Amino acid sequence: MANTFDGNTRSYALKSDSADLAPWNFERRQPRPDDVAIEILYCGVCHSDLHVGRNDWGFTQYPIVPGHEIVGRVTQVGDDVSQYKVGDMVGVGCMVDSCRGCSACHEGLEQYCLEGMTMTYGSPDRHDGSLTQGGYSDRIVVSERFVVSIPDKLDPAVAAPLLCAGVTTYSPLRHYGVKSGDKVGVIGMGGLGHMGIKFAKAMGCEVTLFTRSEAKVAEARENGVDHVIVSSDDEQMAAATETFDFLLDTVPVPHDLNPYLNTLKYDGTHILVGLVQEVDPALQGGNLVMKRRVLAGSLIGGMPETQEVLDYCAEHDITCDIEMIDIQNINEAWERMQQGKVKYRFVIDMQSLKNA
Amino acid sequence: MANTFDGNTRSYALKSDSADLAPWNFERRQPRPDDVAIEILYCGVCHSDLHVGRNDWGFTQYPIVPGHEIVGRVTQVGDDVSQYKVGDMVGVGCMVDSCRGCSACHEGLEQYCLEGMTMTYGSPDRHDGSLTQGGYSDRIVVSERFVVSIPDKLDPAVAAPLLCAGVTTYSPLRHYGVKSGDKVGVIGMGGLGHMGIKFAKAMGCEVTLFTRSEAKVAEARENGVDHVIVSSDDEQMAAATETFDFLLDTVPVPHDLNPYLNTLKYDGTHILVGLVQEVDPALQGGNLVMKRRVLAGSLIGGMPETQEVLDYCAEHDITCDIEMIDIQNINEAWERMQQGKVKYRFVIDMQSLKNA
Repeated sequence: MANTFDGNTRSYALKSDSADLAPWNFERRQPRPDDVAIEILYCGVCHSDLHVGRNDWGFTQYPIVPGHEIVGRVTQVGDDVSQYKVGDMVGVGCMVDSCRGCSACHEGLEQYCLEGMTMTYGSPDRHDGSLTQGGYSDRIVVSERFVVSIPDKLDPAVAAPLLCAGVTTYSPLRHYGVKSGDKVGVIGMGGLGHMGIKFAKAMGCEVTLFTRSEAKVAEARENGVDHVIVSSDDEQMAAATETFDFLLDTVPVPHDLNPYLNTLKYDGTHILVGLVQEVDPALQGGNLVMKRRVLAGSLIGGMPETQEVLDYCAEHDITCDIEMIDIQNINEAWERMQQGKVKYRFVIDMQSLKNA
Repeated sequence: MANTFDGNTRSYALKSDSADLAPWNFERRQPRPDDVAIEILYCGVCHSDLHVGRNDWGFTQYPIVPGHEIVGRVTQVGDDVSQYKVGDMVGVGCMVDSCRGCSACHEGLEQYCLEGMTMTYGSPDRHDGSLTQGGYSDRIVVSERFVVSIPDKLDPAVAAPLLCAGVTTYSPLRHYGVKSGDKVGVIGMGGLGHMGIKFAKAMGCEVTLFTRSEAKVAEARENGVDHVIVSSDDEQMAAATETFDFLLDTVPVPHDLNPYLNTLKYDGTHILVGLVQEVDPALQGGNLVMKRRVLAGSLIGGMPETQEVLDYCAEHDITCDIEMIDIQNINEAWERMQQGKVKYRFVIDMQSLKNA
């Protein structure tokens, strides 16, 4: 490391579960030999930011700086860093570390690390125990293993949400074997769902959006879906019985899986990427057993696949639809996100932090 | 067909959902050109017999003759029959027909026939609409496509339960990719579970039985399992966290899947073969999402795989543990089966029907 790193970091943080996000200065650690220091240019706003900020999952320590869809420029590299140099456009997603020694880490599935991944914010650092802090800030220090390269062809701002919303939808489509010609249903059209639609289309699938809202039908067509099913319409649901190969279910709140399962062919797969709470109403075992269907889960993606999705998007001209905001508007953005009033992802222009 | 077929059939049937099984004579149809007529020698007693007999699933028409684990000798063959000849030892499982034209039928997955399979008992025949009647009887007429060959090496009596309990557990182990060295947990040790243990052992897996009952530990060891976990013991369950590749869940009543799911490694698969009712307590979505686990279903097996399991058992000296009974004791056997007091499958010696 040529120069001492200036760790004095400007950010927006929550000081308690009922507080608004507000300016906060803190000290980032000095880079270790395998670390990359990054000037953050853009950070996507993910629903998880809100959950952790509000302590919905019960493990939040304050102050907390959210943000795990981070794009920026390398400003310094440690002596052992080999993949990145100063000036590179890079990204950081949901993880910043893992044990690196277990079978999952060896497979490049660091999100399933047997010792638990270190999340980008709100996790204890594996070396010094300090709490990790996320991307609603002007700089970050991350081990190069958890840094990805942003391809030149991608607009850095629209690339940011690929680091969570993108890989979360891309990874299961790949892992569970979605292929050209498959009939794929995407359930929900928010940040995740609209990316799922784009990936499934790019993979050559016939794509249907399931939405509760008649109002989203036209919007879905604009996003390139082949068909729309209004899920509250029993007739439309019945007409879809046993017609899908895959369902990509992005809904993050409890919902009835049974009517969706019945739209799957035998051997069909219903993939959950949003639901961590209980399945309510109850799942009917027969809806799996009688047609050899599969209910599957998937969590973000590993580091190799996070790079892969960026390269895939560059190659296939896939971008995330974003609304750019200044950090000063983040509290309003969270509210709108909670109401589903964003098409489809907020991205914070971190230049605005200089005016904070 | 050389001779006219004597369709006058002796059987045990239920006349209503509250009746005991009792002798009943009825007329089997004359064989069609692709039909095989079979003198039934043995018939296994499956939990489904009881469910349908008691109209638990709501579609039963009376009188009904249960039984879908049928072994016997060919007595006549239709003019178009090419695979079987008089005197052959053959089997009939859970299905006697399907549409034969859909993708599932073309794949040899007749149990997932898009038009619905014709079950061995209680289904309308696809040609004449008459109700199919099962194997608690002295003869049956079945299209050769739905007849399998009993290998010479297999004792015909112990082969009978392979036609349902056997293929139901063998098929998903194959389909979901269980392989040598995998750690497999079998949940429940009844008719299905004890076969699942034998197959998983034969496939080279390290096999653990999950049972609620301390009393079954010694019995499980006799059946060749490597380990036993008493599922009501929280400490034993906790010690098994993230250690299994596959779970074969044979429990036919609602139970909490969450503690079992947590014993699966990431990418592990929990296979339901018994549960068609609701999952209660509720499934936690996070138990799938956070470790990319799969909850999968499976229903019996197709005709090619039903033959395969018989051949596999002959090759690997696998038999079902049975208790032979006379048909006159069938009502008592049903009661004991309902109480789980059988090791592990009743098989009716159909010679006893001659004394009925």
